[in-house]
Amino acid sequence: MTTDIFARCRSYTDARAARSAGLYPYFTRFEGSDATIAQTPMGEVVMCGSNNYLGLTSDPRVRAAAHSAIEEYGSSRTGSRLLNGNVSLHEELERDLADFLGMPAALVFPTGYQANLGAIASLVSRNDVVIIDREAHASVYDACGMSPAKVWRFAHNDMEDLERRLASCPPDANRLVVVDGVYSMAGDLCPLPETVQLCRKYGARLLVDDAHGLGVLADGRGTSAHFGMTEQIDLITITFSKSLASVGGAVLGPEEVIDYLRHHARSLIFSAAAPPASLAAARAALGILRDEPWLCRQALENASYVHRELAALGYDPLPSEAPIVCVPFESAVPAMFAWRSLMERGVYVNAVLPPAASPRLRASFTATHTPEQLKRAVAAFAEIRELTPPEWALEDFAAQGAA
Amino acid sequence: MTTDIFARCRSYTDARAARSAGLYPYFTRFEGSDATIAQTPMGEVVMCGSNNYLGLTSDPRVRAAAHSAIEEYGSSRTGSRLLNGNVSLHEELERDLADFLGMPAALVFPTGYQANLGAIASLVSRNDVVIIDREAHASVYDACGMSPAKVWRFAHNDMEDLERRLASCPPDANRLVVVDGVYSMAGDLCPLPETVQLCRKYGARLLVDDAHGLGVLADGRGTSAHFGMTEQIDLITITFSKSLASVGGAVLGPEEVIDYLRHHARSLIFSAAAPPASLAAARAALGILRDEPWLCRQALENASYVHRELAALGYDPLPSEAPIVCVPFESAVPAMFAWRSLMERGVYVNAVLPPAASPRLRASFTATHTPEQLKRAVAAFAEIRELTPPEWALEDFAAQGAA
Repeated sequence: MTTDIFARCRSYTDARAARSAGLYPYFTRFEGSDATIAQTPMGEVVMCGSNNYLGLTSDPRVRAAAHSAIEEYGSSRTGSRLLNGNVSLHEELERDLADFLGMPAALVFPTGYQANLGAIASLVSRNDVVIIDREAHASVYDACGMSPAKVWRFAHNDMEDLERRLASCPPDANRLVVVDGVYSMAGDLCPLPETVQLCRKYGARLLVDDAHGLGVLADGRGTSAHFGMTEQIDLITITFSKSLASVGGAVLGPEEVIDYLRHHARSLIFSAAAPPASLAAARAALGILRDEPWLCRQALENASYVHRELAALGYDPLPSEAPIVCVPFESAVPAMFAWRSLMERGVYVNAVLPPAASPRLRASFTATHTPEQLKRAVAAFAEIRELTPPEWALEDFAAQGAA
Repeated sequence: MTTDIFARCRSYTDARAARSAGLYPYFTRFEGSDATIAQTPMGEVVMCGSNNYLGLTSDPRVRAAAHSAIEEYGSSRTGSRLLNGNVSLHEELERDLADFLGMPAALVFPTGYQANLGAIASLVSRNDVVIIDREAHASVYDACGMSPAKVWRFAHNDMEDLERRLASCPPDANRLVVVDGVYSMAGDLCPLPETVQLCRKYGARLLVDDAHGLGVLADGRGTSAHFGMTEQIDLITITFSKSLASVGGAVLGPEEVIDYLRHHARSLIFSAAAPPASLAAARAALGILRDEPWLCRQALENASYVHRELAALGYDPLPSEAPIVCVPFESAVPAMFAWRSLMERGVYVNAVLPPAASPRLRASFTATHTPEQLKRAVAAFAEIRELTPPEWALEDFAAQGAA
């Protein structure tokens, strides 16, 4: 046969090219439990590429909660919440999340990715229109891909474009607008007041994915609280794998919508419940966040410091209101080379390359980064400022069509 | 405005009707760490509704591995494997899984649901055809929904229908056939030899979702090994949330396909890595499974015993070659009533209702169920054999259109 779905795998060479050039920035193997220091095959690094904004993954209280849950509930419930997977930890965490965020009800999912799939794909049907910010998270795109609704994108944070799209909805179409609260590829915020106003004007419901706002803005209560307008947001989705030091996700909204999702969200019903240890860790982290809001402010301050210092060094970091500092590059190979040069200097940041986003280094900061660690990160950026990739690297990639 | 995506939530009344009739079989709250006994608001029950086939969620070795991982790696890595979330535990588990299943390579995902999304949706594109068994798992359907490929279903285990579909593929279309190894809603197997033969004849790749075969058939090596044809299977997907006492999933296949998925599977790249405790628990469970294959045989034997006893009682359990015993009902309310009647007698089974599948009670059994627990389950089924739902329950539901 001449047809084969595996043919596209054989013709994929980007990763091999990057590996052979020594510039492969993905799937680094990390060791160690510290939030800000990790061991890698290239040596010890300051971790400036996690979403561990509050540094709570190694907090003794979070660990203790996870340990207790393993003893109390076992290593897994081996089943969907709908059937045998639901434990009181789920319901306690849901109550705590709803209370903390000021929303009526919450529904916990196995992952944040699946929370977005469940919230979006279950609520819209063929004749509905979902209008999403072009830079919304990949899970929002995947949820839309899974739903039979029409999906329109508007230019990032462009309220005129959003209004154009809303105005062109068929009159009988239900409308859902989906935005991120904080855009993780730069750290900029959604203009929530204008977005809410437009949704009201055009009768659209609004879902805010606040993965990167929870635990960061408004003493941790997120983007909606930052703008003082939580009561006007229809649905919020969150993940536990950022500030909450765990894995899992949740949808928050009106009780009747949550109860509908409880019985219709396929990514909830047809997937095993999050392990009890993850639920307990998230709940413990949420308690710490509630009691110690200085952690959010410290994470923001740490990132602010690095943002200022990189600007002073002549970098052009993207505007950010989150603990995220992104430095754009003109093309992929220089970004990969800068990534490796930072690694060689003991600093790990994320290399973000197309098609995920235009080339950039994405650094993110944690409340528990020490001043010395932050200085080490800045010093490494200073050292690599004038470095350029060797010709052979550029040529090697150009030959393979990857640059 | 007259349009509102939330309108469908307000008109959803099935769950409320079931709750008010006292027949609501979902989201039971379970307590306790034992694999075979649990506490619920309706009292203590024998757990005959988990996928904990080997009973390893409370095994001290599995718990110890999870505890150690929390100390060694923290409660979460708070990031995608692509960037900061990859740890050596991932790679060790991948090697162990590939070795145990006899496949060239493995890729670990945060959930089994996301493993299917990643494997299927990343590999096929617009002009390809995915042909799935009508009773394939919901995550297979969702993966297909997310992909732009054509999706055709064939009648369950009907090789003539599969051949008809394969024969009608456009000549230039890549073809992927997706089946479950073990169908979880009855416990029957895919006719793998005939399926493989047809895939070869028509140049299709074959993916076997072996969520319920791993840890059960062929001393745990699953459906492909059961038929002695692992080398002829292109891709296998598995989950850790059944026999492996954890949460997570994996895709197994040729190294070049795995490397392609590593860089293209959106449900991997854009979702946080599974927590280290879950990886460690799965790896420990896999080690126990490898060393103690009697566990698989005991789970099968326990289910066989119940299957025989229920048949002797006059039930008509569906044919099963897995630790799954399904008793069909003609409609939803009698199934729900039987579910509650078993709960009142201290036995929990899954109530499965449309649209998930036609109405049935699904019981599943574990290597560590004691003979007394199995007898208690059978005795409860015996007691409810002649019970019929009270008129008011049927009427109540009929009035709400839910029966």
